[in-house]
Amino acid sequence: MKRIGVGLLGLGTVGTGVFKALKNNQDVILKRTELLFEIKGILVRNPSKKRNLEGVQSYITTDYQDVLESDVQVMIEVIGGLEPARTYIEQAFEAGCHVVTANKELIAKHGLELAKKAQKNGVQLLYEASVGGGIPILGTMQHFLKGSRLHRITGILNGTTNYILTRMTEEKASFGEVLADAQHQGYAEADPTSDVEGLDAAYKLSILSRLAFETHVPVDQISRTGIQDITPDELAICHQLGYAVKLLAKGEQFGEKGPVSLQVGPALLPLSHPLAKVNGVYNAIHLEGDLVQDVTLMGQGAGEQPTASAVIEDLCNVFRLPYLKNTCSDSTSGLSVTDEGGSRFVYVKTKKPVSRNLKEIQQSLSRNGYTVERLSTDPETGRNLGLIVRHWDSAYECSLPEDLDGDMVVNRPVSGGQFADDMDVHEPQVILETL
Amino acid sequence: MKRIGVGLLGLGTVGTGVFKALKNNQDVILKRTELLFEIKGILVRNPSKKRNLEGVQSYITTDYQDVLESDVQVMIEVIGGLEPARTYIEQAFEAGCHVVTANKELIAKHGLELAKKAQKNGVQLLYEASVGGGIPILGTMQHFLKGSRLHRITGILNGTTNYILTRMTEEKASFGEVLADAQHQGYAEADPTSDVEGLDAAYKLSILSRLAFETHVPVDQISRTGIQDITPDELAICHQLGYAVKLLAKGEQFGEKGPVSLQVGPALLPLSHPLAKVNGVYNAIHLEGDLVQDVTLMGQGAGEQPTASAVIEDLCNVFRLPYLKNTCSDSTSGLSVTDEGGSRFVYVKTKKPVSRNLKEIQQSLSRNGYTVERLSTDPETGRNLGLIVRHWDSAYECSLPEDLDGDMVVNRPVSGGQFADDMDVHEPQVILETL
Repeated sequence: MKRIGVGLLGLGTVGTGVFKALKNNQDVILKRTELLFEIKGILVRNPSKKRNLEGVQSYITTDYQDVLESDVQVMIEVIGGLEPARTYIEQAFEAGCHVVTANKELIAKHGLELAKKAQKNGVQLLYEASVGGGIPILGTMQHFLKGSRLHRITGILNGTTNYILTRMTEEKASFGEVLADAQHQGYAEADPTSDVEGLDAAYKLSILSRLAFETHVPVDQISRTGIQDITPDELAICHQLGYAVKLLAKGEQFGEKGPVSLQVGPALLPLSHPLAKVNGVYNAIHLEGDLVQDVTLMGQGAGEQPTASAVIEDLCNVFRLPYLKNTCSDSTSGLSVTDEGGSRFVYVKTKKPVSRNLKEIQQSLSRNGYTVERLSTDPETGRNLGLIVRHWDSAYECSLPEDLDGDMVVNRPVSGGQFADDMDVHEPQVILETL
Repeated sequence: MKRIGVGLLGLGTVGTGVFKALKNNQDVILKRTELLFEIKGILVRNPSKKRNLEGVQSYITTDYQDVLESDVQVMIEVIGGLEPARTYIEQAFEAGCHVVTANKELIAKHGLELAKKAQKNGVQLLYEASVGGGIPILGTMQHFLKGSRLHRITGILNGTTNYILTRMTEEKASFGEVLADAQHQGYAEADPTSDVEGLDAAYKLSILSRLAFETHVPVDQISRTGIQDITPDELAICHQLGYAVKLLAKGEQFGEKGPVSLQVGPALLPLSHPLAKVNGVYNAIHLEGDLVQDVTLMGQGAGEQPTASAVIEDLCNVFRLPYLKNTCSDSTSGLSVTDEGGSRFVYVKTKKPVSRNLKEIQQSLSRNGYTVERLSTDPETGRNLGLIVRHWDSAYECSLPEDLDGDMVVNRPVSGGQFADDMDVHEPQVILETL
């Protein structure tokens, strides 16, 4: 048995989870790893805040030096944000401390420099909890996919937006209504901007991309679209046509050491895709590579216990698994971040029945690069509802010919890698139903 | 860089995949692990068999001693079956060789003794490829879930039966038809007994259960039901009612160090369950525990490349990850293998319309322990089709009261852990539709 002194920086949701887990699950951790973790100090901002945690008071301090100087071999940083987290972590390295963190923003923005500083000081920096809550995605990529060249990542990485989209689909409720209720229930932050606009997912995608493609793409170079303009009508139509709408984080590398494209935004997924059924607060990551073919990991993307689980695993693995060499180049020189091609799905509700002059409309659309896949028909009345149209280039700014009087109810890229390939969405055929 | 001599026992599908992977992916493996694997010898039964593998001929031998004596540090066993695989592995241990194997039958039946022999000889025995093809499920359980007490495993562990059930559902084809075609296409063995009757899945469940519950349950104590009597009618009705039918491997532990129940058999899964959409040759494992809550891993459960991926990862990790201590007791003394309770779903097609005397039928059924959940109605004609009936005890042998003249079209347990709980299937309410 080896005793390990632990410092805990922050006692919010994750910090509380870690404190409880080190108490309640100490026996299994000790039995399986022969490591006994002992908390030496907990840094908080407000020491007089009422906390419903037995025995916590004796560890609490507001002075980081107290924690740093209390025989600590590993520091757990769960404060979040750039500062003071970054300075604390650097000071921990200088004091010869390993660091385990859940800080996605810091790791996305300064992970490479921090990893170098850790290496220079002969200590480790682990950050499993920064992506996907309890899902051991980083560990899997680092230790169980060493033989595969990964070329595509597709992830649902933000629980808040996934929860909102799930409820909007199920309840046919508007974005504003569901967001307000989610905030009320604690599933969304008071300021939901980072989640809703895809910034949180972009942090996580940047981290995943570093491991998968060994390429660092700064967060501000990731193309981002939020979910705020999605309507329940759009979700219902997509579902009826065999697609789920998800806020997807997508990364693709074009050839070994080739350029990397990273995007976050709402996209259509065929319902046969493993991620299409990932609902509510669940996160999932689908990886595609040359040897393993594809692997999906799924689990709870946030919350006290799942996130604490990831921290605890890192805590053990600092002392169990081999130190990881950074194989990611720290510049993007020579790499261009290109837009992903692919199919865009447009659903148009026409004001006049299209059946009368379909051929003309079709010709007009195809001059704009569209393929009319089929007419959508109301199953109850049998009347035409609209046109389903595809465009090869998912980045193409969609606009309809002037002579087509209609509204675009859906106007989104289609994703899904091999699963989309299976469905032939990348090379649509013109299937015109009889009128 | 460290050079490692490798012996390869068997050159079937997996062996071929490993040979190719060590050639085609050597550069990434070397870069990420600083290990250079060099094949020293390949044991085959028939040396004159035509093989479309460049450069393989110079390694081939029919004498195991040739391989054993050719400066090999690790032996890859992909012959399958109990003998001679077991003897070869033991001889490798005695020669100081690590062993990586894909042999589920051998590991399920003799894994504990073999692990002990490996430990005694100071070498490692790894067997990731024995469960779930390319899915790194064993590694995840051993290295990334050390802080969680797992209490339930639900898995789709056999690709052949999953492929058959998927096609039966999609094509409304019979078991016999699909099996014949699957055999023709190479998705099913000439003798499909082990797959179809759930034995293959039981081997894998036994291995998973050892890691999850630290309890060894011999394969012959796992309750097993095959898929051979499933009809396309049954699949269609279940799908219509919100369920997928899957050959599930289920393990549950009742309390820490408590009794363990292991079962393999077709079961209904709510379509909201992460495993319900795992189709075709995909495998998936859903783990539930106290800290991580739940994690699902999904991927291709068989095939040359995915299985070779698992072998390659083990090959690297023999030299990278810490040796694992066996924490599983090698007897089942003190542990009783009990049957899982839960809900059973019975769908009865009545010969006479039930709407006329529903109350009497309901009373008669409830005397047999059934709850009538609702009447199922044909959406097209509006006529009653049958009764949907539940029984709390999934192990209950279902029989209908004599006065109810009907056929049981579905008669299966319902699974799904927390997802089933969400759906209230464990405590069904009587929802009688208006007649």
